[in-house]
Amino acid sequence: MASVEIVTVGTEILLGHLVDTNSVHIAKQLADHGVDVFAKHSVGDNADRLFAMLEGVLERADGAICTGGLGSTVDDLTKDAVGRAVGRPLVLHEPSLRAMEERFRQFGRVMAENNKRQAYLPEGCVVLPNPHGTAPGFVALRDDGKFVACMPGVPREMKPMLAERLIPWLEQRFALRSAIYTKTLHTVGIGESDLDRRVEDLFRSLENPKIAMLAHGFRVDVKIMAKAQSRVEADAMIAPVAEELRRRIGTHYFGDDETTLAGAIVAQVIARGWTFGTAESCTGGAIADKIVAVPGASAAFRGSIVAYANDVKTSLLDVSETTLETVGAVSEETAIAMARGARSRLGVDLAIATTGIAGPEGGTAEKPVGLVWFAIASPDGEVETRRMTFPGDRADVRDRASIAALSLLWHRLQAADAIPAR
Amino acid sequence: MASVEIVTVGTEILLGHLVDTNSVHIAKQLADHGVDVFAKHSVGDNADRLFAMLEGVLERADGAICTGGLGSTVDDLTKDAVGRAVGRPLVLHEPSLRAMEERFRQFGRVMAENNKRQAYLPEGCVVLPNPHGTAPGFVALRDDGKFVACMPGVPREMKPMLAERLIPWLEQRFALRSAIYTKTLHTVGIGESDLDRRVEDLFRSLENPKIAMLAHGFRVDVKIMAKAQSRVEADAMIAPVAEELRRRIGTHYFGDDETTLAGAIVAQVIARGWTFGTAESCTGGAIADKIVAVPGASAAFRGSIVAYANDVKTSLLDVSETTLETVGAVSEETAIAMARGARSRLGVDLAIATTGIAGPEGGTAEKPVGLVWFAIASPDGEVETRRMTFPGDRADVRDRASIAALSLLWHRLQAADAIPAR
Repeated sequence: MASVEIVTVGTEILLGHLVDTNSVHIAKQLADHGVDVFAKHSVGDNADRLFAMLEGVLERADGAICTGGLGSTVDDLTKDAVGRAVGRPLVLHEPSLRAMEERFRQFGRVMAENNKRQAYLPEGCVVLPNPHGTAPGFVALRDDGKFVACMPGVPREMKPMLAERLIPWLEQRFALRSAIYTKTLHTVGIGESDLDRRVEDLFRSLENPKIAMLAHGFRVDVKIMAKAQSRVEADAMIAPVAEELRRRIGTHYFGDDETTLAGAIVAQVIARGWTFGTAESCTGGAIADKIVAVPGASAAFRGSIVAYANDVKTSLLDVSETTLETVGAVSEETAIAMARGARSRLGVDLAIATTGIAGPEGGTAEKPVGLVWFAIASPDGEVETRRMTFPGDRADVRDRASIAALSLLWHRLQAADAIPAR
Repeated sequence: MASVEIVTVGTEILLGHLVDTNSVHIAKQLADHGVDVFAKHSVGDNADRLFAMLEGVLERADGAICTGGLGSTVDDLTKDAVGRAVGRPLVLHEPSLRAMEERFRQFGRVMAENNKRQAYLPEGCVVLPNPHGTAPGFVALRDDGKFVACMPGVPREMKPMLAERLIPWLEQRFALRSAIYTKTLHTVGIGESDLDRRVEDLFRSLENPKIAMLAHGFRVDVKIMAKAQSRVEADAMIAPVAEELRRRIGTHYFGDDETTLAGAIVAQVIARGWTFGTAESCTGGAIADKIVAVPGASAAFRGSIVAYANDVKTSLLDVSETTLETVGAVSEETAIAMARGARSRLGVDLAIATTGIAGPEGGTAEKPVGLVWFAIASPDGEVETRRMTFPGDRADVRDRASIAALSLLWHRLQAADAIPAR
């Protein structure tokens, strides 16, 4: 069993100008792979303080895992401190320099002289290549076998480096065996306490695997955690629990692990041989954006008409001027007309429309900030509507409205088996 | 000047099941009040490790500021460790016990025996009353004058205790006067190393105010930090530095502090009396979404046509079938036609179009994954185009493409003073 402490480097994180999400991700991943995380630390861009911190960590634990401070600017001092902590000078790592030069060439940019500093690494270290950025990571070893691993602070560079390079290195070095394996079941349209009532007895009785609930704002996940010697063994322990949970959650369950709600919707629309699209006012393209984020969405998603101005609702979605004048843009009638208009103008089987008041201005007593009308036009020509009012500021209202729209689409698809496509 | 380190106690935060927002808040508040924060740490519910950590902190700094672990459950061991670190036994604090009993009475609940433990505090400490919860906070002093302050982990209890009790105590004890005030200048379309070259001499020479660079993926901020006795004094120190920086950054500078790139664009479009819209393929509504996120965007933004399917590009944006057949959807010609189509169909002065290959499928040797064509149609009918290739996965490409689109719009607006609106 290996023990480590996590060190986040950077004044911005230390002083709270940036929220540290890296150490949360790293701690979770390490715990899942059987590494004991004893402590987490955050220091500013100060080589002496980082050096003192690393010395302390290497007294208590097998190693330190650092993120941040590998960039090309003069305030990136991590490597100097690490070199001192493990007693190794920084030397030029030619393959990393060449990889960086190649990367710059590929994107048609000239590499600045100060980028070269990123290719200097502690002598004898294990290099962790960075296919998603310029600065390589590394694991530097002290003579006594204690280690300091360094990864970039940019999450999209750090995460794959951790999963594909550092964790395999840790597994090999510490012969990690029993680890925690997880499966996450995603739900939508059911609250935390409702869900709790459905699974409470399992929550109390199960030991290994055990289950936990995790609320993400307006969606709840159920996580199944098994301590096992291998993924295969864990999967066998997890499978019957997952099946029982899916049965209890019913149509609110939409997928496992990496599956997104939009991804589950795209898969269902494809499975039915349908196409779909959106007509958005207050959500302003956010629903379309979530759908297009799904690889392969083009097999079912045809497009969206973001009709933010009223006369665009008329010219591109055929909402009548009379409707807009008599009941207003934020109304059931307008939502229905938008959904129908999207279905015909985009040439899709299924269309969802949103129109609402995101704020901060524009609310009235009858139509307060947070009010959103939804309409779903189905392949059989029928239109369902829903009125919801969301709390929070403009960003909250728009975010909740776009997730609610996906939730409505999901539940429409669950009920759609009997309806033929046009 | 006082120096402290922040210690967050609790296994949930250490292992990443809860995101630590407390230490971010505390670090900001302390910095604003002139307290130097040297480091932040997170430990689990383990009294020995917390004790060892506090010993280290009190060697390096004037004091430790802890949150969490003051509850009534058996894993709340903070006070034992603190008592040992400062060399004081825990003794019953009668006024706190009476306040707790009163609080329970008030809410009509019976106080459990284990709640009483919350009223045991290190001998001789300064008590920080907790009007928002049961557990009081405290500042325990060691014989040499070093201190350990403890507050609850629940943010709505911790925040007022920090503001109303702990910070006043620190101000008095350390006769704090000066504090750190900041201003952030946002840039777009310029890389970290380019920017570094333009401001490196200031970075090296300035002491107070000093400057720092902060990269957010594809955008870089320059932060100016002034240590001063008041906001007014700080503003006077910051103003000339900000002016010099803006001059050097030129048109890549788009705003200060809370200003977003989309917000700066909306303001510029409104200032010119124009309207604008987008035609999106690979970005799939992400550009529109960022613009609609700006409060008051409706004064200039009319909408977007997300034409993900090819024939929607034809039916709603008037891209000719011949163009799509001969040069394909991802081409300069298609981007131009989309931008012109958006300008006429949405009835806007200015329109930007995107068409590209987000991946993971669909790339070829000539049109690799990451290739995106942009076109901007201007009020005078002219269309500019740009071809870019972005690294990374589907999410990276789409994210970078939508920021690049805003960057192009921004630079187009900067050059637009002489062009009349239609």
